[in-house]
Amino acid sequence: MPESWVNQANQIDQVHLAESLGADLHLDLTGPGSRRAVLIRALRDAVRSGRLAPGTRLPAYRSLAADLGIARNTVADAYAELVAEGWLSARQGSGTLVAYRAEPLAPARAPARRAPASRPAYSLLQGQPDATSFPRTAWLAAARRALSAAPNDAFGPGDPRGRPELRQALADYLARTRGVRTDPERIVVCSGFAHALRLLFPAVLPGPLAVESYGLPFHRSLLATAGIRSHPVRVDELGADSRELASLSGVRAALLTPAHQFPTGVPLHPDRRAQTINWARSTGSYVLEDDYDGEFRYDRKPVGALQGLDPEHVIHLGSVSKSLSPALRLGWMVLPDRLVDAVLEAKGEREAWAGVTDQLTLADFIASGSYDRHIRRMRQRYRRRRDQLVEAVAGHAPHLHVTGIAAGLHAVLQLPDGATRSDESAALRAARWQGLALDTLSEYRHPDATMPPRHGLVIGYATPPEHTYPGALEALCRALPLGA
Amino acid sequence: MPESWVNQANQIDQVHLAESLGADLHLDLTGPGSRRAVLIRALRDAVRSGRLAPGTRLPAYRSLAADLGIARNTVADAYAELVAEGWLSARQGSGTLVAYRAEPLAPARAPARRAPASRPAYSLLQGQPDATSFPRTAWLAAARRALSAAPNDAFGPGDPRGRPELRQALADYLARTRGVRTDPERIVVCSGFAHALRLLFPAVLPGPLAVESYGLPFHRSLLATAGIRSHPVRVDELGADSRELASLSGVRAALLTPAHQFPTGVPLHPDRRAQTINWARSTGSYVLEDDYDGEFRYDRKPVGALQGLDPEHVIHLGSVSKSLSPALRLGWMVLPDRLVDAVLEAKGEREAWAGVTDQLTLADFIASGSYDRHIRRMRQRYRRRRDQLVEAVAGHAPHLHVTGIAAGLHAVLQLPDGATRSDESAALRAARWQGLALDTLSEYRHPDATMPPRHGLVIGYATPPEHTYPGALEALCRALPLGA
Repeated sequence: MPESWVNQANQIDQVHLAESLGADLHLDLTGPGSRRAVLIRALRDAVRSGRLAPGTRLPAYRSLAADLGIARNTVADAYAELVAEGWLSARQGSGTLVAYRAEPLAPARAPARRAPASRPAYSLLQGQPDATSFPRTAWLAAARRALSAAPNDAFGPGDPRGRPELRQALADYLARTRGVRTDPERIVVCSGFAHALRLLFPAVLPGPLAVESYGLPFHRSLLATAGIRSHPVRVDELGADSRELASLSGVRAALLTPAHQFPTGVPLHPDRRAQTINWARSTGSYVLEDDYDGEFRYDRKPVGALQGLDPEHVIHLGSVSKSLSPALRLGWMVLPDRLVDAVLEAKGEREAWAGVTDQLTLADFIASGSYDRHIRRMRQRYRRRRDQLVEAVAGHAPHLHVTGIAAGLHAVLQLPDGATRSDESAALRAARWQGLALDTLSEYRHPDATMPPRHGLVIGYATPPEHTYPGALEALCRALPLGA
Repeated sequence: MPESWVNQANQIDQVHLAESLGADLHLDLTGPGSRRAVLIRALRDAVRSGRLAPGTRLPAYRSLAADLGIARNTVADAYAELVAEGWLSARQGSGTLVAYRAEPLAPARAPARRAPASRPAYSLLQGQPDATSFPRTAWLAAARRALSAAPNDAFGPGDPRGRPELRQALADYLARTRGVRTDPERIVVCSGFAHALRLLFPAVLPGPLAVESYGLPFHRSLLATAGIRSHPVRVDELGADSRELASLSGVRAALLTPAHQFPTGVPLHPDRRAQTINWARSTGSYVLEDDYDGEFRYDRKPVGALQGLDPEHVIHLGSVSKSLSPALRLGWMVLPDRLVDAVLEAKGEREAWAGVTDQLTLADFIASGSYDRHIRRMRQRYRRRRDQLVEAVAGHAPHLHVTGIAAGLHAVLQLPDGATRSDESAALRAARWQGLALDTLSEYRHPDATMPPRHGLVIGYATPPEHTYPGALEALCRALPLGA
């Protein structure tokens, strides 16, 4: 093994230096020659190979000298030599930097993998809240309070359920706002709805699974990857047709969107809610309640969580993806008691997914009332946008109807009776021509669905930043088909 | 469908109210009777069922009235009635609260699933940094800077690679401190080492996989769950014996800990490093470099990342689990160019795991130099602890040797030659008797390993809080076997 020099530097000195020392630097100080020569060669190689980028500030003499256990003068000599050679540059007051003229040989840069497709000017694609609305200041304030108050063990290996502060805050919040009946012990934090599905299938629940005939293709493909077959049930103006559940042989779980059917937008009718629960009870099945936008109701008709009807047969799934940001990666599962252990086993012995700082911050954000305030503000903003959408369509294309508007972050613009999939495509092309991105209903249809198809455009009115929403609406109106 | 009242409240009023409104409340306002009667019944049910916990503050009159579209007086009447009934309590200046004397019928609480085992007084279990050392203030300062500076699209759906700010910061940092050669396009952020393994196997790399004869059982079981067989290679005083790799038929990947073999503690000898790279090149295989504690070297012998020798055959894996906290759930993979697309496909179309706030914060934490400062501080602290450990053992049991001390967060206390597994167990029992938790070397041995067993105790000297470390050392010394 080539030897490098090892020197027992004064430890007390090092402690005192700790606060003032600068950047860490990895140098391979092996090979022949004096310490000075070896150091010069190592630094030169690091700069030449591009490993030390131009503009990088080198450690101060005394810092590097202490690290390497060599004399400060040796470091100073080496820096001076490399400045003379043009690899480094020394500036009064800003230390020694890697010179910009050193023309580093950077590693070959991989070509950008996603060619930046010509982006539409406006997006009404459903599925995300206005990214400009993330409450940065309130979130930071909550983070400050939460991190100051957190016990030290919060930074050790985490409980596989998630932080107790967050589970308590969620239990209280979901009970208060969504009618969920639970205690914190039955809540398991995860990194979002997709993660919840991954944890449940197939480790906790076997397939096949009943799903709605219209729903997110992403969920279906995720289930397919997990080896789970999905059976579509009809969706009508009362929501998913729960009467079909009993006829699906072998199906012991159903994934539903009771608060606001996705994407058609109707809430599950109370009779259907009761039928669904009865089916689950009589067959020993589970209902997965995807409460993706349950906080956003505009019409004051209370649609509590299905979970409140039977906490032992409903798995209530929620996240902050619509209420705060999909980039936070925080979600939760409210579980029947007898599924908790299986879910924890699927998750692993430690919390392996959701970061503790966000968990603690969200707990404070909820408990301090900041979450309620944010939801209210966004509810009003989205309600206003919905009203503007309805008004604009009524003004420009009174023969079209906007449905599913009582709640949520999207609505459906129904094409007239008799419309076909090619009418949808034509509308989509017209929208693209106007620089507007949106989806059609057909994209959400289950490939095995047998119910008559519906045709329309899915309008994600929450997506654009506030200042571009009027432009997006104008583009939409220009793209709308004229009445017959 | 039972009708609840719907009232088009003045929208402008609502906008003005938004900032001052309080908590959200889900109430099922259906059923017979006057609005006042229905509201009273709904509130009473919510309190009685335990859904509204004692001490919960109810919305202000005008807030709930605006939400429900009813007169403020009706709300005031309902509150007054429930105060009279004892369900609520009104206090001057603090509004209306759910009363504590209401004896809510809470849902049956699941029994605590993990009986709090009698915790040892001291832990020298390896694998985690001192949880009291998490740099809360510096982390919050970085979060404040990062969240203020972040573009809005940071809060939209994320790039599956992870935030560009973080990948850039990591590329610079790893080049500077670990000799890693990469650009940000080849870095993929993940939620830790285990997540990286899950992404790679079996979707990106097929089994079987060569592993070290001593290693983390957690990694082996994770691989087994993914259907990947692991073949143990010998570990000696020069690290993993790379000469064995060529003899393993069908093996096209090797998981190694080159900087500091886990848990025996030796760095991979330069000859072995070269052999390993040659094997990977000549067979088209990949080396997975688990750089779990690469930042923590105490002896100034440079051990750069293996990846620097051949970026196209080494997958460099790191995380903040040892340097900051395992609870942050942030890690990274530095990938050969031709594996990037496959890893992204395994990860999914969006960043589904690592939260954006932590990603942005870590990027700032690194770029601002806070990470370097933290590492230096911790390196000095752990070096001091290591020295104290060596000194304590030399004083109390000079016949025992502490090895693997040049780096990392743990050391191995070798039992004398001729020791057996039952000597290990006896030492472990003695430690437990002293209230001390630690592991034995045998727990890390691969079940199929053929090399002669080693016996010793694995001492995680980084684990305890600073103020309990002397006590932990004393407990260890009391537990040490006396010399022959």
